Amino acid sequence: MRRALALAVTPGVPVGPNPRVGCVLIDDQGAVLAEGFHRGAGTPHAEAHALAEAGESARGATAVVTLEPCNHTGRTGPCAEALIRAGVRRVVYAQPDANPVAVGGAGRLRSAGIEVEGGLMIEDAQEINRAWTFAIARRRPFVTWKFATTLDGRSAAADGTSRWVSSRAARLDTHRLRALCDTMLVGSGTVAIDDPELTVRDEVDQPLATQPLRAVMGLRDLPDDRRILNDRAETVRLRTRDPEEALATLHSLERRHVFLEGGPTLARAFLQADLVDEVVAYVAPMLLGSGTNAVADLGITTISDAVHLHVTDVHVLEGHEGEDTNIRLTMRRK
Amino acid sequence: MRRALALAVTPGVPVGPNPRVGCVLIDDQGAVLAEGFHRGAGTPHAEAHALAEAGESARGATAVVTLEPCNHTGRTGPCAEALIRAGVRRVVYAQPDANPVAVGGAGRLRSAGIEVEGGLMIEDAQEINRAWTFAIARRRPFVTWKFATTLDGRSAAADGTSRWVSSRAARLDTHRLRALCDTMLVGSGTVAIDDPELTVRDEVDQPLATQPLRAVMGLRDLPDDRRILNDRAETVRLRTRDPEEALATLHSLERRHVFLEGGPTLARAFLQADLVDEVVAYVAPMLLGSGTNAVADLGITTISDAVHLHVTDVHVLEGHEGEDTNIRLTMRRK
Repeated sequence: MRRALALAVTPGVPVGPNPRVGCVLIDDQGAVLAEGFHRGAGTPHAEAHALAEAGESARGATAVVTLEPCNHTGRTGPCAEALIRAGVRRVVYAQPDANPVAVGGAGRLRSAGIEVEGGLMIEDAQEINRAWTFAIARRRPFVTWKFATTLDGRSAAADGTSRWVSSRAARLDTHRLRALCDTMLVGSGTVAIDDPELTVRDEVDQPLATQPLRAVMGLRDLPDDRRILNDRAETVRLRTRDPEEALATLHSLERRHVFLEGGPTLARAFLQADLVDEVVAYVAPMLLGSGTNAVADLGITTISDAVHLHVTDVHVLEGHEGEDTNIRLTMRRK
Repeated sequence: MRRALALAVTPGVPVGPNPRVGCVLIDDQGAVLAEGFHRGAGTPHAEAHALAEAGESARGATAVVTLEPCNHTGRTGPCAEALIRAGVRRVVYAQPDANPVAVGGAGRLRSAGIEVEGGLMIEDAQEINRAWTFAIARRRPFVTWKFATTLDGRSAAADGTSRWVSSRAARLDTHRLRALCDTMLVGSGTVAIDDPELTVRDEVDQPLATQPLRAVMGLRDLPDDRRILNDRAETVRLRTRDPEEALATLHSLERRHVFLEGGPTLARAFLQADLVDEVVAYVAPMLLGSGTNAVADLGITTISDAVHLHVTDVHVLEGHEGEDTNIRLTMRRK
């Protein structure tokens, strides 16, 4: 299973609607017959890769796979059937497939007389597909909200200037995090005013070949010249102010992980609807004492109503060329 | 010198107006004849301890000392004279003594025909007496300002409630930091309203035997029943609103390291006077969206006037019994 988990996270697989899956076929003595991993939506599943590599030797083998084999015909055929046809004797998987369209693989295998064991190293498998696991279980994308703040909670000075609140290192880091998501979401107000392009760029400021979906929510009409409407990436309009509705649409578009950028108003709507699952804060060690609040008024009046977060990671981003060191705090909703 | 530096930081020496100093007497072959370290104001200096231990064997020896031997009679006699009398042949020291009342030791030794070398491992020596070195050079105490804030820059909710903004781990940590200073400073407003006792307590909430000075600045009269006036520690009134004047008085009281607590008004006065040398911020991973600002309006209107800080340490304080993890950021003024 360790080998299957390692295969699942083979670098280079584009972020997409499908989970990352690894599969190892072994014989009775535990010797590896074949390996496979899923390379992204529309390509064969991990099991199919391994079965193709094994050929006839798959007969009587044990398939070790990080996710319960699927039981449906989507962009590819059902893996449960493929394993049965190949004559596999035993299947060991980590994480059950909760995807309603794919569910039932283990049952199908058992009914064909195959010995099935599930749950081995399940937590490691779930962690690999953290957003996907969440999205399938909750029927909406996992939401990561990113914001930048001074040490005293400001995103800009009183006159609106905000240079240096994010260091170059923090901005680069943001692009890295964007690339781990399949959707970037902003409000139409931010698009109208700030005109962000919202693409993922590399360290030399070149756009990556594969870009997350750009989603703009809100009712405001957008001028045609907005950079977010250019052809560097796909863009979708979500004509609603309701976070739940926006996420429902994104779920129907098979989006698993939304990176929430844009202004405090959009963040407030998500926070108040309890639809922020993860918070990434870049804290700049500077004090302003006044200016724009990084977090909008949430209607909280007493301390017991505060939004509590659970810190999962603290990372120091060293400043270059005289820039401030920024601190990245990653937190889950408690 | 390494041994002398290690002696200087022997645990158990109370924080006080004097620098921590270590001294090793060695013979021509480099063998250690005697050692000494300073145990705090009013007790013999490191050199005196070492010379007493060495007795007659000090004649012709080399004294290795972390600070230039003093040249004045204070609470104890001048070390330069003691070294000359003992017949020491050579003196090697790390940090020059910039204290105007003690300066001139190296010159006095040289004029007595003793070979003198200064500056060896000077940075290590300065770091040991960081606040003292600063205070002597700048003729005022080093100022550490401590504050607690939510991730969005609030110290309390709109109704004034502030429970959990500091975790128990953060409060314990604050007591540890207080104990490293010789003075705790608050404003008379904070004393009138919050009535803090401002003592250093240990992990089981008992006051330590040695307490820093409690200093209250401001013009407001204090009711006699204020806890800061109790006999658990010394208290001094500084009847001024001017941070520079308050620090001048504390300097004349031989105070080297002020721990600035108390409200945002006092902190603002020090920040605006550029008299904050170190900032310790406890950041709670919670969002309020409104409430009391942790940092008062500093009169800064544009980003280029922001107070920039240099991060020297980031420390994660795990929460216990369901409390939030707090992040301690330590920063120097840039």
